[in-house]
Amino acid sequence: MNAPQPRGDALGRVIARLANSEEAALERLFRLLAIPSVSTDPAFHDACVQAAEACAGALAEIGFAARVEPTLGKPMVVGHWRAASSGAARRHVLFYGHYDVQPPEPFAEWNAPPFAPRLADDPRNGKVIVARGASDDKGQMMTFIEAARAWLTECGGLPVDVSVLIEGEEESGSPSLGPFLAAHGDELRADLALVCDTGQWDADTPAITAFLRGLAFSEITITGPSRDLHSGLYGGPALNPLHVLAKILAALHDEGGRVAIDGFYDGIRDPSSSQLQAWEELGFDGGAYLGGVGLSAPAGERGFGLLEQLWSRPTAEVNGIVGGYGGPGTKTVIPTQATAKLSFRLVPGQDPQTILASLRRFVEDRLPEDAGVRFAHEGGSPAIGFNTEAPAFRAAAGALKAEWSKPPVIMGCGASIPIVESFQSRLGMDSLLIGFALDDDRIHAPNEKYNLTSFTKGARSWARILAALGETHSHGS
Amino acid sequence: MNAPQPRGDALGRVIARLANSEEAALERLFRLLAIPSVSTDPAFHDACVQAAEACAGALAEIGFAARVEPTLGKPMVVGHWRAASSGAARRHVLFYGHYDVQPPEPFAEWNAPPFAPRLADDPRNGKVIVARGASDDKGQMMTFIEAARAWLTECGGLPVDVSVLIEGEEESGSPSLGPFLAAHGDELRADLALVCDTGQWDADTPAITAFLRGLAFSEITITGPSRDLHSGLYGGPALNPLHVLAKILAALHDEGGRVAIDGFYDGIRDPSSSQLQAWEELGFDGGAYLGGVGLSAPAGERGFGLLEQLWSRPTAEVNGIVGGYGGPGTKTVIPTQATAKLSFRLVPGQDPQTILASLRRFVEDRLPEDAGVRFAHEGGSPAIGFNTEAPAFRAAAGALKAEWSKPPVIMGCGASIPIVESFQSRLGMDSLLIGFALDDDRIHAPNEKYNLTSFTKGARSWARILAALGETHSHGS
Repeated sequence: MNAPQPRGDALGRVIARLANSEEAALERLFRLLAIPSVSTDPAFHDACVQAAEACAGALAEIGFAARVEPTLGKPMVVGHWRAASSGAARRHVLFYGHYDVQPPEPFAEWNAPPFAPRLADDPRNGKVIVARGASDDKGQMMTFIEAARAWLTECGGLPVDVSVLIEGEEESGSPSLGPFLAAHGDELRADLALVCDTGQWDADTPAITAFLRGLAFSEITITGPSRDLHSGLYGGPALNPLHVLAKILAALHDEGGRVAIDGFYDGIRDPSSSQLQAWEELGFDGGAYLGGVGLSAPAGERGFGLLEQLWSRPTAEVNGIVGGYGGPGTKTVIPTQATAKLSFRLVPGQDPQTILASLRRFVEDRLPEDAGVRFAHEGGSPAIGFNTEAPAFRAAAGALKAEWSKPPVIMGCGASIPIVESFQSRLGMDSLLIGFALDDDRIHAPNEKYNLTSFTKGARSWARILAALGETHSHGS
Repeated sequence: MNAPQPRGDALGRVIARLANSEEAALERLFRLLAIPSVSTDPAFHDACVQAAEACAGALAEIGFAARVEPTLGKPMVVGHWRAASSGAARRHVLFYGHYDVQPPEPFAEWNAPPFAPRLADDPRNGKVIVARGASDDKGQMMTFIEAARAWLTECGGLPVDVSVLIEGEEESGSPSLGPFLAAHGDELRADLALVCDTGQWDADTPAITAFLRGLAFSEITITGPSRDLHSGLYGGPALNPLHVLAKILAALHDEGGRVAIDGFYDGIRDPSSSQLQAWEELGFDGGAYLGGVGLSAPAGERGFGLLEQLWSRPTAEVNGIVGGYGGPGTKTVIPTQATAKLSFRLVPGQDPQTILASLRRFVEDRLPEDAGVRFAHEGGSPAIGFNTEAPAFRAAAGALKAEWSKPPVIMGCGASIPIVESFQSRLGMDSLLIGFALDDDRIHAPNEKYNLTSFTKGARSWARILAALGETHSHGS
């Protein structure tokens, strides 16, 4: 088989084929959605295996060398399609998705059974696919597989070499993923990962997620008296660890909301001014975002916009405090110790271990006489910021613009996405995070849906992205 | 019966009688100690009734009109002795003690059964009475009853009119005491209460406790977002109630340990300079006091001595904080609310309700936009400071000096003593808090003991105090 050279006319035929086969594509998706592949519930283990086999079957059917690989948990699906003339000159991508879904409970809140997929009319979104997993992640994953099917059927090949990894434990912490990547790294390593598990900016606007905050976390325990004391018999002279802890936590932020730990902001790589400008111009409805959780004013670093606070500024958060008496009513105790759980969202340029070391110094510098401190449960991972000027990134952005008639929003994500971190740290691969989910998809909730246009335009988007990635590479950029 | 006029010679005969009847007195105490009157354990209800009857019997045997009064819980013992010529001219005192004891567990740590009282040799204290209740409070209570017995046996009367109230629920929160005082207030109200449930300064030095700190308490809950938030998806812009709480609690004390609530120290009545001087001269071993609980430096208000911080300075203490995630490991949550339990030790001149109102303003003034606050579980009672220059106080101090060859230490107590508060608020009575317990009596612990000298010199002390109270009063002071 000769590798086809994608040309504009080839892409046109692929797009036309996708348009003509929507009904069949939807049928294939519905068959997958009907499998109750809930990974957290052992009762559904066989369904997970069945879903894995269905995915491998779908890949094999369109020409991939595909197999199901057992793990200690749910099986992995691995597939490869490589052009006969494949070599260093051809781009090689690894597509990632997951076939497992969240538990559907509470059943009573579903308007129809969660594993009986159907098309429904939605007043806001038009036709929607309703089922558990419709959006997260079976529907998203199938946009890519349908795009690959159209390329292979219409042109006999793909514009780039493609490997596929589909896991079955994403909704239950991915315990098998690390060992699997360690064991199969050489097989899976590609030039770039394509991950379809994120969202659009809105129903009309595609998005690429390019900035993911990192995380550092620690638990600090302030110690004082050797035992709990009666506040009548010791109150006054006796050191109260809750007071020490409150003073330390209060000092974490200055009056402007800036983190006061020495060196916290050292080395941070800020987004480009054009990137910040683009975010500014998005007209993000901060009032609705905060209003949805009962708030009205951004409480973060003064002088930074809301999206900037969320996507490109680091934070220090107290996630929990436990100390002294927590039961009903009153107990006049001076406790022997008090504990706070802290976490930090990090941005590119910050190292989790350096931040934790700075935290330790910050706390130790503020301990009064007789107070001690223990640190526990420390860990973290760095932020990820992809180069939005890289040829592959620009190629994908251009392909999305061609499909949606507007350029994609280059988004940040305040939280880390473990698979992206794993690809980066274990396989040294950047990821292109492109997905077609919408905020109102009700993922993890009853009546999960995926817009029919997310599915159809999503498949066309991938068809275009594959073409663009192939062209960019062969053009030597 | 004619009321005897106590004279020096009469007191001498009473003291001699006490010296000659020590063995019999000890036998009477041992019979009471053998009754396992544990008030918290329903299994010992009959033993409590038996102890009440034994106390009433002991009072009746020496000439009191005594009875056992049922309550919804453990019975009360009430007794009265009044001189035939009794009238407004004679002083009337109410003696208070309790016949119930703490549970003896853990049994394995007792060197002998807890309700088999015995004399033992103690390397530090000489002869000691060992049994549950030996010190708290059966031994202490019997010092007074033995003194009354000696007066009545030797002289046929008491120097003052005496009522006695012995309760059986002191170790389990005194639930019946309030209703009982409400129902029997007119019968029990006297010029002064004598309470024998406190300690000496040391084995050689008697003490009168004259200052008891009061208490105010409240629970504050800071509210923020309408639900728990993911710190990745909201961290930065979203208000964190734990941060707000930490800032407020950190602001409670200034750098010198002074409470920063507006008006907190307004109206405080400080101890006299001679009182402060006397405390200074006690040579209190603050190092040992703090060292015993793993501390080395007084952490209270700068510029005040340790005893002063403990007995005559108010405090603000955080007794507990609950908010966010408290389980093992990490959870990156921004909680919807965070709660702290606070209590204040108060000194004379401070009103609990005023302090709580000031606290509410203090918190409300520090709430940032979008933060709310709820206050709950508020309550308290004022401090008590007795007039140490009052004739009865001076008379009692003189009597103690006569027995111990040194004047009593006028002590404070950092905690409130509920019975003293009840006598003050319900019957309008001051109390003389005189007891002979020592810090090493192991009350509430295995191998509780009461020094034999505490028992014998305690009884002689009460014999002298009764004489002095009678003389003071009849001398018209």
